[in-house]
Amino acid sequence: MAKHAIAVLLLFIVLFNLALQSSSSQPPRPFSFRGAPKFLGRFSTSKSHHSNDRRSKQILGYRYETRYFEQRLDHFSFAELPTFNQRYLISSEHWAGPDRLGPIFLYCGNEGDIEWFAANTGFVWEIAPSFGAMVVFPEHRYYGESLPFGSREEAYKNAATLSYLTAEQALADFSVLITNLKRNLSAEACPVVLFGGSYGGMLAAWMRVKYPHIAIGALASSAPILQFEDIVPPETFYDIVSNDFKRESTSCFNTIKASWSALISEGQKENGLSQLTRMFRLCRELTNTEELTNWLDSAYSYLAMVNYPYPSDFIMPLPGHPIREVCRKIDGCPDGTSVLERVFEGVNVFYNHTGEVNCFELDDDPHGMNGWSWQACSEMVMPMSSSPDASMFPTYEFNFSAFQEECWTDFKVIPRPRWITTEFGGKDIMTDLKTFGSNIIFSNGFLDPWSGGSVTQNVSGSVVALNTQEGAHHLDLRAATAQDPDWLVEQRATEIKLIKKWLSDYYKAKGATSLSNVATGDKATFM
Amino acid sequence: MAKHAIAVLLLFIVLFNLALQSSSSQPPRPFSFRGAPKFLGRFSTSKSHHSNDRRSKQILGYRYETRYFEQRLDHFSFAELPTFNQRYLISSEHWAGPDRLGPIFLYCGNEGDIEWFAANTGFVWEIAPSFGAMVVFPEHRYYGESLPFGSREEAYKNAATLSYLTAEQALADFSVLITNLKRNLSAEACPVVLFGGSYGGMLAAWMRVKYPHIAIGALASSAPILQFEDIVPPETFYDIVSNDFKRESTSCFNTIKASWSALISEGQKENGLSQLTRMFRLCRELTNTEELTNWLDSAYSYLAMVNYPYPSDFIMPLPGHPIREVCRKIDGCPDGTSVLERVFEGVNVFYNHTGEVNCFELDDDPHGMNGWSWQACSEMVMPMSSSPDASMFPTYEFNFSAFQEECWTDFKVIPRPRWITTEFGGKDIMTDLKTFGSNIIFSNGFLDPWSGGSVTQNVSGSVVALNTQEGAHHLDLRAATAQDPDWLVEQRATEIKLIKKWLSDYYKAKGATSLSNVATGDKATFM
Repeated sequence: MAKHAIAVLLLFIVLFNLALQSSSSQPPRPFSFRGAPKFLGRFSTSKSHHSNDRRSKQILGYRYETRYFEQRLDHFSFAELPTFNQRYLISSEHWAGPDRLGPIFLYCGNEGDIEWFAANTGFVWEIAPSFGAMVVFPEHRYYGESLPFGSREEAYKNAATLSYLTAEQALADFSVLITNLKRNLSAEACPVVLFGGSYGGMLAAWMRVKYPHIAIGALASSAPILQFEDIVPPETFYDIVSNDFKRESTSCFNTIKASWSALISEGQKENGLSQLTRMFRLCRELTNTEELTNWLDSAYSYLAMVNYPYPSDFIMPLPGHPIREVCRKIDGCPDGTSVLERVFEGVNVFYNHTGEVNCFELDDDPHGMNGWSWQACSEMVMPMSSSPDASMFPTYEFNFSAFQEECWTDFKVIPRPRWITTEFGGKDIMTDLKTFGSNIIFSNGFLDPWSGGSVTQNVSGSVVALNTQEGAHHLDLRAATAQDPDWLVEQRATEIKLIKKWLSDYYKAKGATSLSNVATGDKATFM
Repeated sequence: MAKHAIAVLLLFIVLFNLALQSSSSQPPRPFSFRGAPKFLGRFSTSKSHHSNDRRSKQILGYRYETRYFEQRLDHFSFAELPTFNQRYLISSEHWAGPDRLGPIFLYCGNEGDIEWFAANTGFVWEIAPSFGAMVVFPEHRYYGESLPFGSREEAYKNAATLSYLTAEQALADFSVLITNLKRNLSAEACPVVLFGGSYGGMLAAWMRVKYPHIAIGALASSAPILQFEDIVPPETFYDIVSNDFKRESTSCFNTIKASWSALISEGQKENGLSQLTRMFRLCRELTNTEELTNWLDSAYSYLAMVNYPYPSDFIMPLPGHPIREVCRKIDGCPDGTSVLERVFEGVNVFYNHTGEVNCFELDDDPHGMNGWSWQACSEMVMPMSSSPDASMFPTYEFNFSAFQEECWTDFKVIPRPRWITTEFGGKDIMTDLKTFGSNIIFSNGFLDPWSGGSVTQNVSGSVVALNTQEGAHHLDLRAATAQDPDWLVEQRATEIKLIKKWLSDYYKAKGATSLSNVATGDKATFM
C-alpha cells in the first residue's frame, strides 16, 4: 500500500536535496547534500515490495500481463545505438475492444519501477471497468526493468550512457509503444486517455500537448510543470511546506525555525555531535550536523506531501493529518523542554509512529547515481530557495553556478535550465493553453508543496484545475477508501465526468454511437 | 528570381526519384535512379545565384543581416556532440519593437540555402512592414552554411554524421533560436507567426502543432504532411501530374503515356541508343534508356509544379501555363510525326524555351549524397506509385522492401516509415486538428501534384485550407507581380486577414491594445 507514495516521493526528496546541494560553497550552511541521496535508503521496508510482482498483484488484486517492447534509445536521431526493452503492464480484462472503440487508459510511468505505480494508482484500475477501458502502464526508460545497455550498472555508468534519459525520449517511448500496440490490435481508432502523478503527471500533461494526435486528454495530478526557471518564485515549495506547519501552530513553526541554529550551536560544542547523536537516537555517531539537518528537513517535506486527512502508510505508518500530530508533539512538551528535544519529539511521529524503532539510520547512497538526480542535473532544473521569513527552513538562495558545478562533479553533465520551457512551454501557460490546449485536468491539493508549481487555475472550458484545499500529493490517483472525505470523492467524480466528456466528444466527432453505452457509463459506479 | 522555385523543386525531384528508385529490382523498368540525383546538376545557371548574397539583395531589395547561432547537434539527448553554427537572416527594419509587442515572422527554412528561400519568399517581406513585423529566416541544419562537423564534406560523410539531420531537430533549432533571440531583445511577449513552403510548410505546420507555445499560427503553403504511409493513395502525386496534362489535351496525355514503351523499343534496337541520343540532342551518348526516361519524367513533374498562370523563370524560363504549351507542341506536330519526336518537341518547352540550348546534359550527381535523399531514406518516407490507368507514367508500385534496400545501399540507414505519423500525427488529421489545433492555414494550388498530400479541407474555424483550382506550388509565398490573377490576389488577402485575426486574438488575450494599431494594419496595403 505504501509503494505509490514512496515512488512519487522519490522525486521530491531528490529535488529537495538538489535544490540545497549547491549551498555547499556558502558557509555557514546547514544543508550540504553531496550528490543525490539514495531514494529509499532510509525506508528499508519498502525495498522488498518493489521487486515482488506476485505480492503487488495479490495485495491489490489488479490483474495484468507484463510485456516488453523494443525501443530505440534515441528517437530523434538515426545514430546507431543499441535498442532496449521497455517493460509495460497491460490489462484488457474490461476493454470494450476495437469494434466498440474501447478507450485505452495509459499511465505515464515516472521515475521508478512501474509496478509501484500500477499498484498504487488504484483510481485508474477502479474506473477502467465502467469505461470499458484497457489499462496500460509503460515503464519510464532507465527505471525498473527498462534499462538500456543491458543492466542498471551499464545504463548508469556515466554521462554518455545516461544521456538518453530525458522526458522527450520517454514521451516518444510511450507514443511509439501505444501506436504500435493499437495497430497490432486494429485499435487505431480507440481513444487514449493519459494519467500521471507528480513527474508522471508532468509527462501526461506534456504528452497531451506534444502528442495530441495520440491522446485525447490527460489527467495530470500534482504535476509541477511550472517549477522551472522563474515561472514561480523559487521559494514556493518551502513556503508551502512551512505554511502547512504554521497553519497548524505558529509556535510549532517557530520551534522548527529556531532549531537549525540550535542544532549548529550544539554541533559546534565539545562533544556536541555525540550529544546530538544520543538526543536523536541515531544508530551511528554523527560526523557533522548536516546529516541531521537533512534527516529533519526530509521529514518535514515528506510530511507536507503526505499530509493526508486519514491515516496512511505510504512511507511510514502515519496518523491522519500527520503535521497536526507533529505539532501537537512539539507544542505539547513540558515547559523547559529544549528546542531540539521538541523537534525530536515531532519527527518521531514521522520516523517512528509505531514506536518500534530503536535507533534511526541516516545513511543515503553515497554515489547519488540515481535516475532522477541525473534528470534534475540535465533538463529538470527546478530552482528552489528558502526565504528568510515565510520559510521555517534555513535561508537559502538558489545559485545556478554552484548547482552547475555540483552537476558537473556528480555526472559530468551541463544542465540546460531553459530547455524544458522551450520544449514544453510554461512561461505564459494561460495564454498558450487557452490558444492550443484542450482536455487537460490539473488536479492539485493545496497542502502539497508541489501545488505551487502546478497549474491551479482554469485555463479554458476544457483545460481545468481541480483543486482541493485540504488535499496533499495526488491523493486522487489512489484507490478509493472508506475514509475518503467528501471533497476527495467529489474531486474524483468530477475527473470521471470530464474524462467521459472527452470520450463522448471524441465519439461524436467519429460519428460513433455504439461506444456511448460504455462511455456514458452503463456500468459506472463513479458517476 | 528563379531561386525559390528551384529550391522547392529540389524536394520533389528527389522524392520523385526515390519513389521510383526501388523499381530497379523489377524488370522491365524504365525508371532506375540509383541514388538521388544532384539537385541542380542540370540547371547550370542557377548555381551562381545561391552563393552570392549581394546579388540576392540587389535583385530583390530585401535588406537583412546574416547572423549565426550556436546549436546543439542533438537537442533530445545529452550526448557529448560538437555544436554547430546555424545561419539566420534577420531584419528588424519594420519591427514595431518589444514594447508594442511587434510580431516576428519566422520562415521555417527547408532543404536548401536559406538565402534562396529569403530571396524567393517575397510575400513575407512584403507584408512585414504593414504588420510592424520582424522577419527571421533561419536555415535548416545540414543545408547552406549551417553544417555540423565543420564542413559539408564531414557533415555528409556517412550515416553517423548525417543521423542528426531530422525534422524534429530542425524544429528544435528554430525553437531554441527564436526563444533565445526574443529573450535577448526582451521580446518574450512578441507573437511569432510561422511561414513555410513545401517541406518548409510541413515544418511550419508541425511546429505550430509541436511548439504551440512558441508560435501563435502558421501559414503552411503546399505542405504535403499527409504524404506518409497509407494516408493518401500512393498514386496521388503522379495522378495529379498526369491530370495536369490530360486536362489540357487527352491526345497529349496519350502520346506521353505511349512514349515510354516506344523509348524502350527504340533503345533495344541496334544503334537504338545512338539514335535516341541524336533524336533528343543529348550532349553525350546515352548508355541506357533509363537516363532519358528520368530526364523526361523530371520535366513533366517539374512542369506540373510550376504550372503557373503567367510566364516565370523559376528553373527555366517558361511561358505561362507551360503544360498547355507543351501539349500544344506535342499535339501540333504534323501527321506522321513519331511519338518520340512529339515528346521531344514537348520537353523542349521546358528545357529550351529560349532556344539557346545546343545540346542537353543529363548528368546527375552519381553519389546522391544530398540532404533530402538522406531525409527521404530515414524519416521522410513518402510512398509513391504510378497507376496503370490515371497516370501517364510507366506503371510502378511502391515496394518498401526494395526502397529499404536502396537506402541501405546508399546511406547504410534503415528507414522508419511510421515515425513521422507517430511524432506529428496525420492518420486522422481532421479529428486531431479539430480537437487540439488552431491557427493554421494550409494553402494549396490544385495543379500542384503535392496538393494531393496536403490538407485541403477546412478542419475548424481556425485551421483552414485555402485552395485555388488554378494554382500550382506555393505561388502564394512569392512576391506579388502585376500579372497575378485575381484568385491569387484574393488567396493572399485572405491569408493576411487570417494572420491579423491570430494577432488580434493574441493581443486581446494579452490585454494589449497598443499593438492593435499595427495589428489591424494602419499601414496595410494588403487588406
